[in-house]
Amino acid sequence: MQPGSGPAVVACGGGHGLAASLQALRHLSDRITAVVTVADDGGSSGRLRAELGIMPPGDLRMALAALCDDTEWGRTWRDVLQHRFTGDGPLADHAVGNLLIAALWQRLGDSVEGLDLVGRLLGARGRVLPMSSVPLEIEADVRVSATRSAPARREVVRGQKAVATTRGTVEEVRLLPVDPPARPEVVEAVRAADWVVLGPGSWFTSVMPHLLVPDLAAALRETRARRCLVLNLVSERGETSGLSPAAHVRALTAHARGLRFDVVLADPSAVEDVEALVAAAEDAGARLVLRQVRRGRTAEHDPLRLAAALRDVLEGSWGDVS
Amino acid sequence: MQPGSGPAVVACGGGHGLAASLQALRHLSDRITAVVTVADDGGSSGRLRAELGIMPPGDLRMALAALCDDTEWGRTWRDVLQHRFTGDGPLADHAVGNLLIAALWQRLGDSVEGLDLVGRLLGARGRVLPMSSVPLEIEADVRVSATRSAPARREVVRGQKAVATTRGTVEEVRLLPVDPPARPEVVEAVRAADWVVLGPGSWFTSVMPHLLVPDLAAALRETRARRCLVLNLVSERGETSGLSPAAHVRALTAHARGLRFDVVLADPSAVEDVEALVAAAEDAGARLVLRQVRRGRTAEHDPLRLAAALRDVLEGSWGDVS
Repeated sequence: MQPGSGPAVVACGGGHGLAASLQALRHLSDRITAVVTVADDGGSSGRLRAELGIMPPGDLRMALAALCDDTEWGRTWRDVLQHRFTGDGPLADHAVGNLLIAALWQRLGDSVEGLDLVGRLLGARGRVLPMSSVPLEIEADVRVSATRSAPARREVVRGQKAVATTRGTVEEVRLLPVDPPARPEVVEAVRAADWVVLGPGSWFTSVMPHLLVPDLAAALRETRARRCLVLNLVSERGETSGLSPAAHVRALTAHARGLRFDVVLADPSAVEDVEALVAAAEDAGARLVLRQVRRGRTAEHDPLRLAAALRDVLEGSWGDVS
Repeated sequence: MQPGSGPAVVACGGGHGLAASLQALRHLSDRITAVVTVADDGGSSGRLRAELGIMPPGDLRMALAALCDDTEWGRTWRDVLQHRFTGDGPLADHAVGNLLIAALWQRLGDSVEGLDLVGRLLGARGRVLPMSSVPLEIEADVRVSATRSAPARREVVRGQKAVATTRGTVEEVRLLPVDPPARPEVVEAVRAADWVVLGPGSWFTSVMPHLLVPDLAAALRETRARRCLVLNLVSERGETSGLSPAAHVRALTAHARGLRFDVVLADPSAVEDVEALVAAAEDAGARLVLRQVRRGRTAEHDPLRLAAALRDVLEGSWGDVS
């Protein structure tokens, strides 16, 4: 693949899910823009956010690592940036790339300039952008079932980590601050894209936050790009516990009135009720494309299988599918 | 200057003094090897040493920064590695390059391999090596003058920071562990050099430790390279308070029996008693070369003036000198 070749693809998400879609998309294009959620408040990112008042760098770092150049240099620096300090002191568990990104932000004052520099270090095949200009917080309405000692109730849960691990059922998520500004580079990339890929990833806390940034949601709605929604392979313990694939699609579109999709991509082994999923996809304007994208028996996407599936999607060659 | 051109020069020291000599030498050669003391126990380096049990990375980082490629890329990464975190949390005052070097050491397990990788990132014009394979501690015998309330006495002071800031007169320094192993790459570089430059820098804590590593001291004594001793511009408050330039030379040679020099380089404005310094230099086998190398009225060497002076030394063109 020549530099600058392939379709212009925007991938929205966060965490390991976004890293999986980027690792797949890099086989198909080097005109990739990753648009990354910035609401994480756990782990190394949460500590840096609390100490330095910055956006959480962790998901941005993982996205950059996923796009690294496939050379000794690129892989070496990827591994260095992914390295976490061992021990039990103040540095323990901090990822080196998080510290580097935090330092670049302090030094350069602009989040995108800092990320672009890390991208140059890695020879990244594309660009990694934060979805918003400010650090965000996630808040969710959660339904908690009745137990022997307490009746069913509704709770407000605040913080990405708390929402992702809630034992209740997430009904709605919001961002704080409400209506945060989108990065203009993000809006521009979405409007200029050939394809936009949402997911996979933690559904309420990594994939849906993008739909709650008004300028980004508008761009996603209005772009002439085609849109693909990539479903997870299991419902996660916590935020989506017990949620079916169809319910995933409906929960997402309920947070983004007017957003249509062209394709919903799922693994057949993750779909019990295909008809319900076809119906949910059709209600979102999309056809369902079923492809084997699982890595062994894990809950992770296999980068090569996902690359092949997304190639079919991007090429429109899904003749054999429901 | 073509890559690989210029004489092979080994520069020994630590801290700002070594950075100054490297910034000068890079004008004269890109076959530079910096041999850096690893006994620092203060600041960011001291904290990393205590937390992670590693060699102090700070002086190594400064040496790498001094050798960075003179391009936008090299200067950008130099500035990033030199950046210190602001704020007052656990990261405050840590230099980014110290964290990066510490992480590379954790990850790669070999100190030289990690430093070479940072050197590649910076496009460094040469190589930066730790003088020993293990973290070191400095211990000094200090003479404390009599005060109204106490008679004169001798004290043992331990730790580079404590020695560097002692109010007493340093009489002898030792390393702990005693007789530490030298890095073989260091011994090799010294034996293969055309020139070895010692100093400037904190005399007892950055310049003299090299003479206390037996294999390194032997290599310095036995190499066919010529040797230049660059004196400081002032005696430092603390470890060398009140010490004359001649006394600097004698203190150093007293710690390295059999070590001879070819040139002692000093700034005329820093030498009150030229005859005493000529005599001390001659006792070490050296001629005194006087050159203006001061930056304005500071106590720092001017990199360009020091470059010009060292060029005269390396070329043997010191016709006009005492």
